[in-house]
Amino acid sequence: MRMYDLILKKRNGNPLSKLEIDFFVNGYTTGKIPDYQASALLMAIYFQKMTKEETAHLTLAMANSGQILDLSQVQGIKVDKHSTGGVGDKVSLVLAPLVASAGVKVPKMSGRGLGHTGGTIDKLESIPGFKADLTQEQFINNVNAIGMAIAGQTADLAPADKKLYALRDTTATVDNISLIAASVMSKKIASGADKILLDVKTGSGAFMKTVEDSLLLAKEMVEIGTNVGRETVAVISDMDQPLGLNIGNALEVKEAIATLQGHGPQDLEELCLTLGAHMLVLAEKSKDIQEGRQILEDKLKNSSAYQTFKKFIIAQGGDPLAVSDPENYLPKAKESVSLKAWETGFINRILAEQVGLATLTLGAGRETKESPIDLSVGVTLHKKVGEEIRQGERIATIYYNDEAKAEAAFAVLKKAVSISSAKPEPRPLVFSVVTP
Amino acid sequence: MRMYDLILKKRNGNPLSKLEIDFFVNGYTTGKIPDYQASALLMAIYFQKMTKEETAHLTLAMANSGQILDLSQVQGIKVDKHSTGGVGDKVSLVLAPLVASAGVKVPKMSGRGLGHTGGTIDKLESIPGFKADLTQEQFINNVNAIGMAIAGQTADLAPADKKLYALRDTTATVDNISLIAASVMSKKIASGADKILLDVKTGSGAFMKTVEDSLLLAKEMVEIGTNVGRETVAVISDMDQPLGLNIGNALEVKEAIATLQGHGPQDLEELCLTLGAHMLVLAEKSKDIQEGRQILEDKLKNSSAYQTFKKFIIAQGGDPLAVSDPENYLPKAKESVSLKAWETGFINRILAEQVGLATLTLGAGRETKESPIDLSVGVTLHKKVGEEIRQGERIATIYYNDEAKAEAAFAVLKKAVSISSAKPEPRPLVFSVVTP
Repeated sequence: MRMYDLILKKRNGNPLSKLEIDFFVNGYTTGKIPDYQASALLMAIYFQKMTKEETAHLTLAMANSGQILDLSQVQGIKVDKHSTGGVGDKVSLVLAPLVASAGVKVPKMSGRGLGHTGGTIDKLESIPGFKADLTQEQFINNVNAIGMAIAGQTADLAPADKKLYALRDTTATVDNISLIAASVMSKKIASGADKILLDVKTGSGAFMKTVEDSLLLAKEMVEIGTNVGRETVAVISDMDQPLGLNIGNALEVKEAIATLQGHGPQDLEELCLTLGAHMLVLAEKSKDIQEGRQILEDKLKNSSAYQTFKKFIIAQGGDPLAVSDPENYLPKAKESVSLKAWETGFINRILAEQVGLATLTLGAGRETKESPIDLSVGVTLHKKVGEEIRQGERIATIYYNDEAKAEAAFAVLKKAVSISSAKPEPRPLVFSVVTP
Repeated sequence: MRMYDLILKKRNGNPLSKLEIDFFVNGYTTGKIPDYQASALLMAIYFQKMTKEETAHLTLAMANSGQILDLSQVQGIKVDKHSTGGVGDKVSLVLAPLVASAGVKVPKMSGRGLGHTGGTIDKLESIPGFKADLTQEQFINNVNAIGMAIAGQTADLAPADKKLYALRDTTATVDNISLIAASVMSKKIASGADKILLDVKTGSGAFMKTVEDSLLLAKEMVEIGTNVGRETVAVISDMDQPLGLNIGNALEVKEAIATLQGHGPQDLEELCLTLGAHMLVLAEKSKDIQEGRQILEDKLKNSSAYQTFKKFIIAQGGDPLAVSDPENYLPKAKESVSLKAWETGFINRILAEQVGLATLTLGAGRETKESPIDLSVGVTLHKKVGEEIRQGERIATIYYNDEAKAEAAFAVLKKAVSISSAKPEPRPLVFSVVTP
């Protein structure tokens, strides 16, 4: 088999066989196939697309390129959750303890990632002492004992995906639905959970800007999961404005804790209840969504979810004081400045992507893999889209440590917000649910 | 400027500017842009095509990536000739001395190449003592004195094209008309001739299988030449069956000499007269094709063309005895075996590509850049398409040095030929001429 022939075949619009896809993924991972042939194939895939079968083969080949986590020692149905990413997305921090408190097993592997803020692991590291590098034994023991654990992805988790993603990122071949779906699902499959809940974001701050594209991606991923025997459900949720009010690492942890205590922002709580209800159904802990939602509302009210979060933090070395008193024990930026309304009216838009850019500018996220990250900085919104605002009232506050960065971020943030005289049409929080 | 943005722009179907194409070609030639980004761009070009302007920019950028040969010391109008390549194509060996004997200046740079046989330089090296590595001074002096010289391409001739071609060859991005046209024309422009005559082959043994595609390529190249001030004419000629009767390095030299002596195969002589007449018009040595053709017929008859060839060989160190007595002074294979007609009828097809494959199997061509080449082996056809043949009569003879290779080549050759009971429709030798 020659890589040249695979490129030619795909270029000419013919589907690749399982053998051919395995040959490519193995050859590329082991360095036998050079980058320049891989990138030519990826660009050919961008134009000629992949069939459902090819996408499934690619997913499995990438999942099998490293170790598949063995979670057979975890009792009960294990459900993993993945978000395609958005601004202010601290859902995992709330959702995992919420559903774990209702008996779902949540063994979560998470990345650090390049983004507007750090990844889930970075956010958790704003809690003093928190450690994400667990041994497999610790990971399994914690899931059995507490119902959840969040560990950093090991280098051996789908290494083919890691190498291919880096190549796609420099050759303008990221935005192909099959390649995105295979990338996400290969990691989820290698992470060893039985069932998968996907939060597919849509809107200006999401990778997929339209509901149509988000639906296509969701369907592709649900189909892959089904094909490989991992029941998968995808929820299409809004990412046109940021989720919740806080954007920034420690700021998001604080908001997650508030939500677990029952006084979080309405949209964040609502989304966690919706996603959680689907996870309960997947884990066979409730017969339907309505019942699942009721169970979770109770877990919030009776503070089980909050207690589970605290146990999880303590089990991974984190300071419990940061959970009970985040205001005083989480990193805080030195300075703050507020953006105020320049006229009276309604908040018409808060473009999530721009807000994300502002927090990245403040230093909350990584521009390259080696960039340091400032856990304390970020943005707090005082209003959300559709709310009334009077001239001079605060729209948002920037928390910063560096004057120059704050000035730049302020300018970006200002562009994110528009005020209108008429109340804008409300946008749904959840657009659609894709089931197998 | 970032290479990523260029890939994205082209991928999305937008034309690249002159600045962007220069950035790419310079960056790639100097190694600042990695292979994997270049191959992604090439695949995007394959799908999105290039405009006439982009193709012209690419051609010039590649021509300017190395030294442009300065031929100002050559007196008169210099005309270069290029063939897109075919089986049994020894046209340059006949054409260059033929038109040089009529006063055209032919400074020809030629490659070795990977093909069914060696390139023009390899073929000439079957003449004992022949040297293709001339200094620029020798090259210019020979063209002034004899009217022609054939030298090997220097490494500094359009190095960007060399590097890009090698990449295209391994990433299935060769067959795009703009890229082919830019590759050919960049070398011709860097070779310094005033005018260019292109022999664009068409048919089963040619790169372009249909007359339509050959015409598109011819038009693209003529347009580039015109745009950069090098008058270019393209002739579309047949390559469905091999040209002439001999295929193989020394065998082709022998046939070229016979043609210069006025007793070559009819198709080869005819094509050389047609191409030569256009070169005479380009060089302003005749007012039209008819007159040009008449001049060249005379040069064949009065043996001026043959004498020019002999002078050229002597000037480049070759043994004149190999020219006057090729039968005894050119390399000869030890053994031969003939393919005989299995039934009576008409030769219906002799697939050029298959015959080429047979000679490659014998060792007449290179499979990789480092492969050795056997100058003595090859195939002689005894019949051409449309001729009558009786059962048991020889169709072709294989000249070989290695029994196993001969057996394999014989099987390939046999598949190249078909015999029919009805006389096939004749195919024209020249399909079309493209002028600016």
